[in-house]
Amino acid sequence: MSSRTHLSSNAHTQFCEVKGGERYAYRRFGSGPGLPLLLLQHFTGTLDNWDPALTDALAEGRELILFDSAGVGRSSGTVPTTVAGMATHATAFLDGLGVGTCDVLGLSLGGMVAQQMVLDRPTAFRRLILVGTAPRGGDDIMHLEKPRLAKHLQDPSNKGYSVLQKIFFTLTPNGQAAGASFVARLAERTEDLDGVSGPAVANAQMAAFRDWERVIGQRFAELRTIRHPTLVVNGVHDEMIPVVNSYHLVENLPNAVLLTYPDAGHGSLFQYHESFARQAAAFLSVTNESAVY
Amino acid sequence: MSSRTHLSSNAHTQFCEVKGGERYAYRRFGSGPGLPLLLLQHFTGTLDNWDPALTDALAEGRELILFDSAGVGRSSGTVPTTVAGMATHATAFLDGLGVGTCDVLGLSLGGMVAQQMVLDRPTAFRRLILVGTAPRGGDDIMHLEKPRLAKHLQDPSNKGYSVLQKIFFTLTPNGQAAGASFVARLAERTEDLDGVSGPAVANAQMAAFRDWERVIGQRFAELRTIRHPTLVVNGVHDEMIPVVNSYHLVENLPNAVLLTYPDAGHGSLFQYHESFARQAAAFLSVTNESAVY
Repeated sequence: MSSRTHLSSNAHTQFCEVKGGERYAYRRFGSGPGLPLLLLQHFTGTLDNWDPALTDALAEGRELILFDSAGVGRSSGTVPTTVAGMATHATAFLDGLGVGTCDVLGLSLGGMVAQQMVLDRPTAFRRLILVGTAPRGGDDIMHLEKPRLAKHLQDPSNKGYSVLQKIFFTLTPNGQAAGASFVARLAERTEDLDGVSGPAVANAQMAAFRDWERVIGQRFAELRTIRHPTLVVNGVHDEMIPVVNSYHLVENLPNAVLLTYPDAGHGSLFQYHESFARQAAAFLSVTNESAVY
Repeated sequence: MSSRTHLSSNAHTQFCEVKGGERYAYRRFGSGPGLPLLLLQHFTGTLDNWDPALTDALAEGRELILFDSAGVGRSSGTVPTTVAGMATHATAFLDGLGVGTCDVLGLSLGGMVAQQMVLDRPTAFRRLILVGTAPRGGDDIMHLEKPRLAKHLQDPSNKGYSVLQKIFFTLTPNGQAAGASFVARLAERTEDLDGVSGPAVANAQMAAFRDWERVIGQRFAELRTIRHPTLVVNGVHDEMIPVVNSYHLVENLPNAVLLTYPDAGHGSLFQYHESFARQAAAFLSVTNESAVY
């Protein structure tokens, strides 16, 4: 912790109003030789759900852009019920900022939005990092009614971020210790907060997961058209979006490296934030065109 | 190539005679702060089948020990028909050299031998790198009769190492170019050679694969007892030992990171030798105990 820059904590929330569209909340910080890195957030997550230990480290080599999609946090509008709708908002936001091409880190739902954006507009991104996510037509995507997850989601003693400790991390001592540290890091920010997402956000995003789970056309065919260098990352014991979905991604994307973490779940990038930041930075900064690093 | 040290090419073959046992051929070179790294070779491979671009790079941070098991290359004895028999030879060899604990890189058959050795004697190794290999009871292990492989193995125009270009690499232009470079690098060594393995080696090793494919007891249960930090690496389109076997490894080993390479087959570590050497060195040298790097 002592080596942290606290760039994340010091970043104020800004707003980008798109003509004829929404007013999006975002935070922008960091600098370095890399392209800007857009961060697309998980189910019900807001600007406040990015682990500052991870974003501090990533911000040392490039500018980060954290973003609330429509209807999330302090962004105006309504949460779309499809990933395609969310991709449209994220693209409008980048246009509003005047960012032509950037790199992207999409986590869970955010990884689906990143895939849709790169299909819709291949020039939007140079390289993709897809964490704990699934391709369209993937397997067992975000079924919160599963006993392993429902148990913790329905437990009234899990308040605020503490439910994340139970569902983003393995239940081993190692996993739970990492989860507790993550929750403590999220709680460091006490001002200029987005607040917690309500049921309207959750319901619309859940509808988007159900739509994304449907196979359209030949399963995974669209992945084969994404030539962008991609780094796929997953906790090997992810209960929310199982690792098999990352296998589907790397077996079908033409140029994707897979990295899986042991004793880790949906929050693998937060659990192993030092390793993940090192791996992500290596992938984003390697100079060979294939980006195999 | 210009940055190569040529440590590998300059390494002479040595012999280690074990009292009451075999006389093993080996090469030992490199230096640095790391533990020695034992390299265990693939089906029919000898000392001459290690890519010098890879071993030159790995030898910059540690001593490498390349080894011919009994009956292979210029080692005396008969090739065992089980992985357990091969593990016994490798352990006897390490004892003969006086190496107490080392790191190990096992490729394909060599990765099976490494797993067996660490089960037999957990103190033999500190960290494991398992490339293009499978756990006991894995899927579709080395079925050379499959059309994709048989086609090239039975083609009389594939002479010497050139068959490796067809079966260790994808058939894409990128994969075949990497394969051609690999074959050219193997051909750099022209003296002090092991020679090519004959049918006796192939038949005994194939029997060991058939035995290793059998499930004994609860499938993959023994993997859960291997607490050693492990890096598992696979080409995502490996036709000889499919990537699903690496998935089995990381889903059952308690502390294993998986790295898969795109557009790569069984020879992924040779195709991406610069990346692989960097990743392997990072894994071997990271100071945290879990070795998640």
